[in-house]
Amino acid sequence: MAPRTACFLVIGNEILSGRTQDANIRVLAQALNGRGIRLLEVRVIPDIPEHIITTINDCRARFDLLFTSGGIGPTHDDITAACVAEALGVPLTCHEESFHQLEALFPAGEFNKARQRMAWLPKGATPIENRVSTAPGFSLGNVHVMAGVPRIFQAMVGWLMPRLEGGAPLTSASWYSYNVYEGDLAEALTAIQHDFPTLDIGSYPFDEGQKRGVALVAKGYDAEAVTLAGAALRTLLASLGFTPLEGDPPRGA
Amino acid sequence: MAPRTACFLVIGNEILSGRTQDANIRVLAQALNGRGIRLLEVRVIPDIPEHIITTINDCRARFDLLFTSGGIGPTHDDITAACVAEALGVPLTCHEESFHQLEALFPAGEFNKARQRMAWLPKGATPIENRVSTAPGFSLGNVHVMAGVPRIFQAMVGWLMPRLEGGAPLTSASWYSYNVYEGDLAEALTAIQHDFPTLDIGSYPFDEGQKRGVALVAKGYDAEAVTLAGAALRTLLASLGFTPLEGDPPRGA
Repeated sequence: MAPRTACFLVIGNEILSGRTQDANIRVLAQALNGRGIRLLEVRVIPDIPEHIITTINDCRARFDLLFTSGGIGPTHDDITAACVAEALGVPLTCHEESFHQLEALFPAGEFNKARQRMAWLPKGATPIENRVSTAPGFSLGNVHVMAGVPRIFQAMVGWLMPRLEGGAPLTSASWYSYNVYEGDLAEALTAIQHDFPTLDIGSYPFDEGQKRGVALVAKGYDAEAVTLAGAALRTLLASLGFTPLEGDPPRGA
Repeated sequence: MAPRTACFLVIGNEILSGRTQDANIRVLAQALNGRGIRLLEVRVIPDIPEHIITTINDCRARFDLLFTSGGIGPTHDDITAACVAEALGVPLTCHEESFHQLEALFPAGEFNKARQRMAWLPKGATPIENRVSTAPGFSLGNVHVMAGVPRIFQAMVGWLMPRLEGGAPLTSASWYSYNVYEGDLAEALTAIQHDFPTLDIGSYPFDEGQKRGVALVAKGYDAEAVTLAGAALRTLLASLGFTPLEGDPPRGA
């Protein structure tokens, strides 16, 4: 059975302006792999209501699951909950349980309007718990709304993943060699892809540091086929006279 | 005049699988800011032809400029040029000049079919030059196709930017304080956003390291308004009893 598909919406001007380096895509991608859910698209979009609403509706229809990060705090640019409500055609209502939990966290007089606003969720939403912060993540239908701050995002992903229906996890086999060029092995690699049609056979040149080379990766949801394809990649590198090394090239290589 | 808008397509399974941490979004975002072009959306999509073609056509219609990275090497998973040709309805043809340049780079007998394939570009494309590699970037209409390997991507962005029609650059003013919470300043911040409707006033909590706090950022294409808004953000932090510090919080803060 094909794995369920997922899309990740990163909501926030700070990635698009280059102010912030994204740290959440990889975290979600690896968590979904482990659950056997396939991340098929990521979109980074600005804090513009029409842009967010249109994108939510496009993506929740095209993919089995939609995850979002960002825009759920107490300030004026935190508009994700309102946009999800608008997109799904439900009102924003005060989530009583979240309201009382938030209220209990703040000293008397500091639970102001801006903070109370965080307890307003789309009608029917269920909270995504996290022990790191007061930010109110929530799930509604196939939409899962999480915080943008990486530490909070990770806590929410960790809480949510075991609660999602999953499948066979994604597995991969990687081999790399120094000094080889993609052009030296392109034709043989095409043949390996043909032999393993259910897998993704990828070729990744690296040349970031002093040393350069190519990493070959077989990836898929059929663990047995991945093992066989990995052996074929190893053999290919060796047959060209290079030393095959298992795994990913060291950072900075 | 409103700045021209841009979309960035990151093509490649390696980001979606979590194997690779993206390093190109921030590079392109900052380069576009400097040229006064507004990056309005990023999409990360897999090496699936229909997915790529549909996305190219959607995004080149919705945004003034479309940039892509990835999928332009010699291997079977390098399908970006063919997908751009298909999306734009033009044939893939051998680009004579690129063919001869590539041919001259390889020793006799090593300019094989896979490498020759890199010289096949959509009809009418003009190459994006780079001194780092043989990877054939190109521009066609409002679509600019670049390599995924960060060092090559940066070289191509550096060559391309001064050749694009730009506008007034994006400027920003940032102030942050430790220990402040977003909920303490949300209402005052809304008032500042109202005072500067042409700017984005953003609030970014940070709590990655030992210290936590909030950074406030005013950003826009009107440098004078940015300066005034920056002063208002500084005053806001001071008025709440916090020490305003200029710029972005130190990494790991």
